[in-house]
Amino acid sequence: MREASTDPQAPDAKAPDARSRAVAARAAQRRLGGASAERRSDVLRRLSRLLAERQEDLLAANRRDLEIAEREGLAGPLLGRLALTPGKIATLREGVDALAASDDPVGRPTLRTELDDGLILERVTSPLGVLLIIFESRPDVVVQIGALALRSGNAVLLKGGSEALHSNRALVATVRDALTTCGLDADAVQGVEGREAVAELLELDRQVDLVIPRGSGELVRAIQSSTRIPVLGHAEGVCHLYLDAAADPTMAARLAVDGKTDYPSACNATETLLVHRAFLDRLPAVGRALTRAGVELRADEEAREVLPESSPATEDDWRAEYGDLTLAVRVVASLDEAVDHIHRHGSSHTEAIVTDDAEAAERFLAAVDAASVFHNASTRFADGYRYGLGAEVGISTGRIHARGPVGVEGLLTTRWLLRGQGQGAGDYGLGKRSFRHRKLDL
Amino acid sequence: MREASTDPQAPDAKAPDARSRAVAARAAQRRLGGASAERRSDVLRRLSRLLAERQEDLLAANRRDLEIAEREGLAGPLLGRLALTPGKIATLREGVDALAASDDPVGRPTLRTELDDGLILERVTSPLGVLLIIFESRPDVVVQIGALALRSGNAVLLKGGSEALHSNRALVATVRDALTTCGLDADAVQGVEGREAVAELLELDRQVDLVIPRGSGELVRAIQSSTRIPVLGHAEGVCHLYLDAAADPTMAARLAVDGKTDYPSACNATETLLVHRAFLDRLPAVGRALTRAGVELRADEEAREVLPESSPATEDDWRAEYGDLTLAVRVVASLDEAVDHIHRHGSSHTEAIVTDDAEAAERFLAAVDAASVFHNASTRFADGYRYGLGAEVGISTGRIHARGPVGVEGLLTTRWLLRGQGQGAGDYGLGKRSFRHRKLDL
Repeated sequence: MREASTDPQAPDAKAPDARSRAVAARAAQRRLGGASAERRSDVLRRLSRLLAERQEDLLAANRRDLEIAEREGLAGPLLGRLALTPGKIATLREGVDALAASDDPVGRPTLRTELDDGLILERVTSPLGVLLIIFESRPDVVVQIGALALRSGNAVLLKGGSEALHSNRALVATVRDALTTCGLDADAVQGVEGREAVAELLELDRQVDLVIPRGSGELVRAIQSSTRIPVLGHAEGVCHLYLDAAADPTMAARLAVDGKTDYPSACNATETLLVHRAFLDRLPAVGRALTRAGVELRADEEAREVLPESSPATEDDWRAEYGDLTLAVRVVASLDEAVDHIHRHGSSHTEAIVTDDAEAAERFLAAVDAASVFHNASTRFADGYRYGLGAEVGISTGRIHARGPVGVEGLLTTRWLLRGQGQGAGDYGLGKRSFRHRKLDL
Repeated sequence: MREASTDPQAPDAKAPDARSRAVAARAAQRRLGGASAERRSDVLRRLSRLLAERQEDLLAANRRDLEIAEREGLAGPLLGRLALTPGKIATLREGVDALAASDDPVGRPTLRTELDDGLILERVTSPLGVLLIIFESRPDVVVQIGALALRSGNAVLLKGGSEALHSNRALVATVRDALTTCGLDADAVQGVEGREAVAELLELDRQVDLVIPRGSGELVRAIQSSTRIPVLGHAEGVCHLYLDAAADPTMAARLAVDGKTDYPSACNATETLLVHRAFLDRLPAVGRALTRAGVELRADEEAREVLPESSPATEDDWRAEYGDLTLAVRVVASLDEAVDHIHRHGSSHTEAIVTDDAEAAERFLAAVDAASVFHNASTRFADGYRYGLGAEVGISTGRIHARGPVGVEGLLTTRWLLRGQGQGAGDYGLGKRSFRHRKLDL
């Protein structure tokens, strides 16, 4: 077990190996998960106070990272993400305070069944276990994810970018001290440093329950292809907006512009416009609205005939996640062809239809196999905050466990609790007692 | 795409490769999953009729397997599992009919939120996608799992044991014909033959969404260690019954005997009795009840002093899944020590406490990290049928996606549907519209 340290610069002289760390995290997690909701709230309140008390030390640690980063010529936007400020710390504290005051997500019944007299089955939410979070530049993640993990009774191993080394150490030490001073095991939150340590942890599919990468598509892909541990995330977001035959042209233009330009580098930005052939007469107006918004169009031959401002699309454009103001445009003969295109080229992230035809809308919503499917709304809505999930753990394009924007629910599993009065399985069966299986209210 | 064949003996002359099969399964699944509930019911009703109409052919195919198996000297119990009978086919048809009449599990809302006026978010259940089922001897699995997959809109690749080759081919062809004659794509259900084909499928983590092994712990372990695809199952069941200081001795004896002897080879059979030191005075009566029931005890030194009929336990006994009438017995100093023993040696399957002390029971239920945790009930209750889940897909000791006994819910994921009136994300934010996030009834 590592000792909690209040010195953010303390070198990790005798770092234990990855397996011992994960095993220690599991043991600490079980104590944290078994603790009362009130106890976990106490830790969060303590963390908020410690963040305030140590603000100067935290900013000093962050200044060391910033100095190194500036010396090494880190780009401006990255410096902005790396920088801690009193304002950012205040925002982090607000988030931690809100979690401390929020209902505990652990131990909630999700199903309750009376199997027989005095034999009550309950399925309750439980912490998932040991999470490995791999993130880049923003040290804020330590507090955001650390606090979510405390609230949900999980242990976290936090691997941040080397450019935030000192900031991350200082923040991890603060979260650990909050645990220790509340009488809980600090190893529920551990910092991980170095690629080698991460590679070792990714091998431990018995010790680590879930990996959450927060970063580029390349980071996610690299992790997905190097571990058997489930990975919550998305490597890409190739989202489509389908303008149906019965699409209103004003709405079509609005949603195309919003989907592409609201935040072009977001994973839920629209990348391809699919256009029903019968909408072609209204497409020029949509094209003009997009061009006015600074969007560069890459269209197939048929669309180009009515979009003189466009350049020709190639096969690669159908799979492109541009991340900028480029938009692909393709004509389809039917709703089914649009759905086929989406299934062939999409990333199962977010797909939308614009139409005034309610039946076509419902067919699209039923047929499209993606995490989020929208009718007459911008693809940009696919987001944990907009969905009202509270803190967003990530957006998953996987089908297992959690799909789409994931809130704290994604950090939970369930356990089955059965409370009896001495019943044995041999009491039930042909010619004996039979089960009642009466569903009870939650 | 393979052609459906009504000839169960038709050799799979030009078998497509694993990837093309999985890709065809995905395409067929999307059509099946997008079909109406009534359409899926039609397929199930058709399957039931075909099973009746083809009974003689199915039994003939099964006889070929039985003849070969007898010639090769397959053991009696395995022959029994391999054999199809008119009675077994009738039971299978009853199951299929029940599924045809049951509520469709696809498209059920699990969350509904009003984000704003005319902007309604819904999370609905959806088919998981492409399942790979790997099973041994019992050809019944083809119909049981095939029907469950049809009901839940999933595609299945079915790999059975070579000893049931002809039976499996005939049954797979029957399920495929049910799909085809209802105008759906037969490739939603495919038979897989040969170890090589399975090995190739286990590599396809983009094409196959879930692997469900139905067989021995060795089979499950072998699969878990050879794929990145999530595996639903359990490699072992080392379940404990903890006799607390305040355990009633009569109930303790009842539950120990039931847990060990009701079905000793089941994964939820009790393998270790943990005994609070303060219960030692009542242990002899429990020991006598177990011995009378034919149980052989392997006890630690302290327990042996009051269990003269026991033999000495070694360290290996704490991890043993005996699968027979052997039971390990160990004395612990406290409930916490019992929980520690369970976490160290258990398989996170099913753990039970016997006690009249309600506070101790709740502490145990909160602290034990396992799929099922029981108070005053036999470990044998951990079972999808007993839990009232309907058909059991498997019992999972994993934490991700599904845990414990898994019914049809384990074959589902969710999708987020958003129905709007042209809203863009840019309409919301500081100084603009704000979200309402009102939870709606389901």
